[in-house]
Amino acid sequence: MLIGKVVGSVVSTRKDEKLESQKLLLLQIFDQQNKPKDQYVVAVDSVGAGTEDMVLYAAGSSARQTTQTDGKPCDAVIMAIIDSWDLGGENVYEKWA
Amino acid sequence: MLIGKVVGSVVSTRKDEKLESQKLLLLQIFDQQNKPKDQYVVAVDSVGAGTEDMVLYAAGSSARQTTQTDGKPCDAVIMAIIDSWDLGGENVYEKWA
Amino acid sequence: MLIGKVVGSVVSTRKDEKLESQKLLLLQIFDQQNKPKDQYVVAVDSVGAGTEDMVLYAAGSSARQTTQTDGKPCDAVIMAIIDSWDLGGENVYEKWA
Amino acid sequence: MLIGKVVGSVVSTRKDEKLESQKLLLLQIFDQQNKPKDQYVVAVDSVGAGTEDMVLYAAGSSARQTTQTDGKPCDAVIMAIIDSWDLGGENVYEKWA
Amino acid sequence: MLIGKVVGSVVSTRKDEKLESQKLLLLQIFDQQNKPKDQYVVAVDSVGAGTEDMVLYAAGSSARQTTQTDGKPCDAVIMAIIDSWDLGGENVYEKWA
Repeated sequence: MLIGKVVGSVVSTRKDEKLESQKLLLLQIFDQQNKPKDQYVVAVDSVGAGTEDMVLYAAGSSARQTTQTDGKPCDAVIMAIIDSWDLGGENVYEKWA
Repeated sequence: MLIGKVVGSVVSTRKDEKLESQKLLLLQIFDQQNKPKDQYVVAVDSVGAGTEDMVLYAAGSSARQTTQTDGKPCDAVIMAIIDSWDLGGENVYEKWA
Repeated sequence: MLIGKVVGSVVSTRKDEKLESQKLLLLQIFDQQNKPKDQYVVAVDSVGAGTEDMVLYAAGSSARQTTQTDGKPCDAVIMAIIDSWDLGGENVYEKWA
Repeated sequence: MLIGKVVGSVVSTRKDEKLESQKLLLLQIFDQQNKPKDQYVVAVDSVGAGTEDMVLYAAGSSARQTTQTDGKPCDAVIMAIIDSWDLGGENVYEKWA
Repeated sequence: MLIGKVVGSVVSTRKDEKLESQKLLLLQIFDQQNKPKDQYVVAVDSVGAGTEDMVLYAAGSSARQTTQTDGKPCDAVIMAIIDSWDLGGENVYEKWA
């Protein structure tokens, strides 16, 4: 999984029928030191993530292993909202700080 | 999923029989700020996308989860036509603007 | 899928038994403007491609969705020979030109 | 598989229910000469890896082939703790050295 | 598939039980002109490859399609030892030269 920040959302009315009612969020990918990378991904949200949340997303076929995305044409899913992470013994990110 | 723009199409008469009648579109991949990236992909169209449409495509095994692509040797599918997206609270793309 | 040009072939006598009699072709990957990229892939040929043909290949599990590659340890398959493609309304490649 | 070093962990209380009780470790990816690369991945630990351990992780659908990760939305799993490796006849890394 | 050279091996006693007795080889990835790339992968050997052999490996779920790797948490498998390959009509590599 990689770390992403919810920075936007995508609206589509004409899409595969299996994707009806799925929230499509735009994630900026971050590195392990909490710095933004010049990469993004559009992911289905399965955990109720909100703007500016730091999240984990799973890609590929693993993105279809949530109840919500099972069998859908979706290659990225937000499967966790991050509370905190540490790197080399130091706290790098703390949601409630 | 990544964002792409329909910029062309590929014609092939000699192909795997499962791909008969499948429309193969050439997508230029775009970044989150609506700028073209130096990357492309050829994707099967499952939503009736047209030239210059901004679309989402799913890659890998997820590209085979539409009714149209099920069981086919296809690793990229257009599964949504984008109406709009926003980034950091600002509207970046609006189809009908 | 990406565009490749058949530029060579690989010979192997000691290989997984499921790959017996499979033709292994060396593809140079091309960009959307018909320029070679500094990337290659070795793919199983399922459509009878020949030297210098421009082809499409599918990667990952999708490479196992042809009758020929089903269940085989193969992560890239040529599933179409390209006749032509266009980009931004202009013809970029024409096999019979 | 690629080589990684356990450099941290990620805490998440709000996540897909299938991921309850899964330990999420932050891995810095290393090259074959035991030098850190500027890449990371967050992986589920299935072997009891600890801080600073050098490990192997499997990505994609292969990450769901351990008993612990079967059917879960997880695209990277630590499936081995490395004791040692050699390169070109020379020992590069030795856990117990 | 990509071309690799067997340059080392990885030893691990603590690993997923499905990987018991699997030989884990370190491959340096090579380009189509037989020049080393700055990339490596650790792959399970299913064909009895030895040091300095040039091999093909399959990645992703295709790495689990050999009898030996079926159902295992392994995302790269050596499935062929290369005898020779040619590029643009010229022989680039010959095992027995």
